[in-house]
Amino acid sequence: MLDAHLRDEFDRLGIRQGRILVAVSGGRDSMVLLDLVARCRRDLGLSLVVGHVDHGLRGVASAADRAHVREAAERMGAAFRVRSIAPEIGRSVPSSRDRPTLEEAARTLRRAALRDMAGNDDCRWIATAHHAGDQAETLLMRLLRGTGPDGLAGMAPRSADGRWLKPLLRVLPERISAWAEEEGIAWREDESNQDRRFTRNRLRLDWIPGLEATFNPQLLRTLGDLAEAGRQDLEWIEGLVDEAVGERVELGTSGVRFAIGGWDEIPEALARRVVRRVLIEVGLGRHVSRTHLERILAFLRRGRAAGRDKRLELPRGFVLRRRGDGFELSA
Amino acid sequence: MLDAHLRDEFDRLGIRQGRILVAVSGGRDSMVLLDLVARCRRDLGLSLVVGHVDHGLRGVASAADRAHVREAAERMGAAFRVRSIAPEIGRSVPSSRDRPTLEEAARTLRRAALRDMAGNDDCRWIATAHHAGDQAETLLMRLLRGTGPDGLAGMAPRSADGRWLKPLLRVLPERISAWAEEEGIAWREDESNQDRRFTRNRLRLDWIPGLEATFNPQLLRTLGDLAEAGRQDLEWIEGLVDEAVGERVELGTSGVRFAIGGWDEIPEALARRVVRRVLIEVGLGRHVSRTHLERILAFLRRGRAAGRDKRLELPRGFVLRRRGDGFELSA
Repeated sequence: MLDAHLRDEFDRLGIRQGRILVAVSGGRDSMVLLDLVARCRRDLGLSLVVGHVDHGLRGVASAADRAHVREAAERMGAAFRVRSIAPEIGRSVPSSRDRPTLEEAARTLRRAALRDMAGNDDCRWIATAHHAGDQAETLLMRLLRGTGPDGLAGMAPRSADGRWLKPLLRVLPERISAWAEEEGIAWREDESNQDRRFTRNRLRLDWIPGLEATFNPQLLRTLGDLAEAGRQDLEWIEGLVDEAVGERVELGTSGVRFAIGGWDEIPEALARRVVRRVLIEVGLGRHVSRTHLERILAFLRRGRAAGRDKRLELPRGFVLRRRGDGFELSA
Repeated sequence: MLDAHLRDEFDRLGIRQGRILVAVSGGRDSMVLLDLVARCRRDLGLSLVVGHVDHGLRGVASAADRAHVREAAERMGAAFRVRSIAPEIGRSVPSSRDRPTLEEAARTLRRAALRDMAGNDDCRWIATAHHAGDQAETLLMRLLRGTGPDGLAGMAPRSADGRWLKPLLRVLPERISAWAEEEGIAWREDESNQDRRFTRNRLRLDWIPGLEATFNPQLLRTLGDLAEAGRQDLEWIEGLVDEAVGERVELGTSGVRFAIGGWDEIPEALARRVVRRVLIEVGLGRHVSRTHLERILAFLRRGRAAGRDKRLELPRGFVLRRRGDGFELSA
């Protein structure tokens, strides 16, 4: 059952003939993913590399996780690679505004380590074991903490650059759990999954079961459907934003030039996305609030009436000003 | 404060010079709305009619609600209109699939009664007292029970036909409550708001306060922002769907004709919306599942290869078949 699902998903995503790095922590989900990929590797012509990231946060347990994953890799004749990371280092940023949480820092370093291992081994793909429960948590976390409509597309089964795969994203956690039991797959429990200091754990342990019981026993599936529809929307919309950016914005080496006119003629939803896209390109993505976005749009909409002397100050020393027959955004 | 907000909102929505029906149940929110509209009516040239819908569900309390609203209307020299409805009647539909819940039936009848009163009095607008708490509940209910991305646009501050207004949609319930207290506005408590048999009440009473405490004290505002962004998206997207329907679909008196080709060239997200729009137009909106939608799209995508003899059966006796140089959907 689940092995057939994985094979279908790989077919759909066009994954065959190449080296694939499977990210394995030693926990239930990634041990199941490893088992499933190993089962179909021959038919699909995949060469399997097991990548383990040692967070070093769990003392003796970390060493045991590593040994567990290494043994599994050896048993199935797959290459084993390991990288140690120290998430605390990623947090040594002076301003608290820019400092990531421990979870964010760990995620960034973990992804860098996996990318690095994949690069060293010429792996075309990196697969992680995120499933429908993780997707639902992501959607709910974003919804509760604040997100625009695009955020509800959730995680993608394949990243835009084609590198990162999440082939279990539509699989309910109980199916993974059943597979682990039926197939006798041994995994290592990560106690930090029970740690209620992490909001995501509280959501999973304390809230989702109650929401399922009160509102919808199929909640995970329902949120998965929403994420999929949101992702289809996003792909469509991103294409429209690309076009609009191409028509109205020049991204140069010294800065960005916006067209002088026409900002009143495109719908607010599109105009905002065009500006947001540009801000992300110049590295202001995280630093620009709703209010900034609105001010920029209001400035652009004034067109020639904005005047040459008027300027709009933005974070990190960026300035938007009318210059010649356009607007220039530069640092 | 809140009176200034209402006036700004009316300005933004272009509400001035005309008769307006305010829907007043006698509860806190609608009594505050009535007070606010009464305060700005002269400046904005609005003539005020108070419309009360008697659900007859609450026995003696219903009569007292009615008297309370009538007195308030008389005190401020506004016309008072009342209609009685019997929501149970709306439920006398044989199939349980089509039968609305008591809440849905009451809502449909209430809206019909308000539309009718507004029509009799030549009111251009009907204003209801939905606020940011109601909007957040709507979003969460839809999210938890299942919705596509468009559903997250929530309720609109003004309906597409311009008739229905929700001028308090961005106002937090605590601001309404504070205004009622400061201005000494008397209202009638509706005990059914505390009735936990209604899921929405459980969401409001039992879940939202906990979600606010655990994840985000600004949850209502956060969900309001999402709804607003979703609504901007929807307005934009609906325009694109209009265009695509115009290019590919003919809505005739005997049925609908879809173009024979090109269904593979437009993005899935758009193609689905085009088909869904058509299904709604022919009255199949509620009767078509995701699976139906996918089958219809797959059929259209086959183009000429679909063959003249193949037909796709749909609910309520509708059939989609290739006919001549197109596809025909008819009953």
